[in-house]
Amino acid sequence: MIQTFRIKRIRESSIEEIEDWVIEETPLTIVVNGQELVTVVCTPEKEELLAIGFLGSEGIVGKIEDIRDYSVDGKTRTVTITLNGITIDDKILSRRRLVTSGCGRGISFYTYEDALKSTEITQRIEISPERAFTLMKQFQRQSSLFLRTGGAHSAALAKEDILLFAEDIGRHNAVDKIIGEALVKRVSFGDKILLSSGRISSEVILKAAKIGIPAIISRSAPTSIAINIARELNMTLMGFVRGKKANIYS
Amino acid sequence: MIQTFRIKRIRESSIEEIEDWVIEETPLTIVVNGQELVTVVCTPEKEELLAIGFLGSEGIVGKIEDIRDYSVDGKTRTVTITLNGITIDDKILSRRRLVTSGCGRGISFYTYEDALKSTEITQRIEISPERAFTLMKQFQRQSSLFLRTGGAHSAALAKEDILLFAEDIGRHNAVDKIIGEALVKRVSFGDKILLSSGRISSEVILKAAKIGIPAIISRSAPTSIAINIARELNMTLMGFVRGKKANIYS
Repeated sequence: MIQTFRIKRIRESSIEEIEDWVIEETPLTIVVNGQELVTVVCTPEKEELLAIGFLGSEGIVGKIEDIRDYSVDGKTRTVTITLNGITIDDKILSRRRLVTSGCGRGISFYTYEDALKSTEITQRIEISPERAFTLMKQFQRQSSLFLRTGGAHSAALAKEDILLFAEDIGRHNAVDKIIGEALVKRVSFGDKILLSSGRISSEVILKAAKIGIPAIISRSAPTSIAINIARELNMTLMGFVRGKKANIYS
Repeated sequence: MIQTFRIKRIRESSIEEIEDWVIEETPLTIVVNGQELVTVVCTPEKEELLAIGFLGSEGIVGKIEDIRDYSVDGKTRTVTITLNGITIDDKILSRRRLVTSGCGRGISFYTYEDALKSTEITQRIEISPERAFTLMKQFQRQSSLFLRTGGAHSAALAKEDILLFAEDIGRHNAVDKIIGEALVKRVSFGDKILLSSGRISSEVILKAAKIGIPAIISRSAPTSIAINIARELNMTLMGFVRGKKANIYS
């Protein structure tokens, strides 16, 4: 996930040549039922989980039984997935290309209106401020890729503690990786919290809503649409969770 | 560009209700020659420049004369552009959906190989470390939306000083807005520097290359592909420009 480059480092008026760590970026094509669905640019790790999570957060699959088999080809940078009784119809592919504001993947095959219609959180979950602070602290300690390269986003699924954790150049990819891992490991979503290092815009909220995660905690800012969607869908949304501070937006 | 929300603010163990500023996020559809090209999610400001810049950084137009006319419909959130003797053929639309790692827009209609073939920087530009430090300082002082909401990216086009500046929830959108403004104002690209608040991944480099900007300075990290492309195309790439420190990657 990291490459070493020989670069020139400037400090005040001195310049020296050093070896430096840089986060790896590489394309990954997701093929579903023999059809190329999308190519994302991501950090090469947990590719199959990213692909499965993508299908989950797009509302195409809801449980691991929906997937007959999957495989990764490292050479062609392709994840091939065969679904169980689910077809990717032209309706999904021809939907208006809603290009989102996220890092790591900016495409969603469903629309804003779709999501608002289809999902509302009914399960009750309680999060004390102390728990939010503690989870965020644990979360940041795990972000080793960011610490080494300064160029990564992370996401986690948590309950009392952090259960699943992933990093990627894209904040969406990081979310998809943990959703994929949860699907594969049969971890339920309805009683969990999604943690994110990045800003919360509409499509991150919609990803969580689509798969049924009731709460999102981020150390960054939300956007206006994200707040509106969270309130509409009865989701918990906390932002700017830093130290002993936080904002509750919904 | 900012909306006010009533939120709950936690500080240590106290919770109080306050009014808070949140960055606005809204969809914008770009229609070219009567055909819907793409819908991006962006901050509602300079929409026509964003759309024109998008066409520029996608290599569809190269100068303002390529555009016969353009108009913004604030109600339907649509920018309608008619091109001068340029057709958007199916080749462009059917190209593999390369979904990028960027914020604000994650789709490019050209591929990595396309870009590598089509552009190499030959114009010479000199940037002293002092100039990079000074430009970055000016740049950050202008980022008022970020200062107020914590959720914005900014981009600028600079020579001795900053000439054009834009902010958006998406770092790509911010880049497209200044490319659009430069096209409209007939500002040349070959002797300019692109400044960005965000990470530099492949598609930001390709945007700059496609329109002919020879140098990029960012306060954040680059990715591995971005460095490789910059070196391949003979572009200048500086990252982590903070205070009197900087890294030269290419």
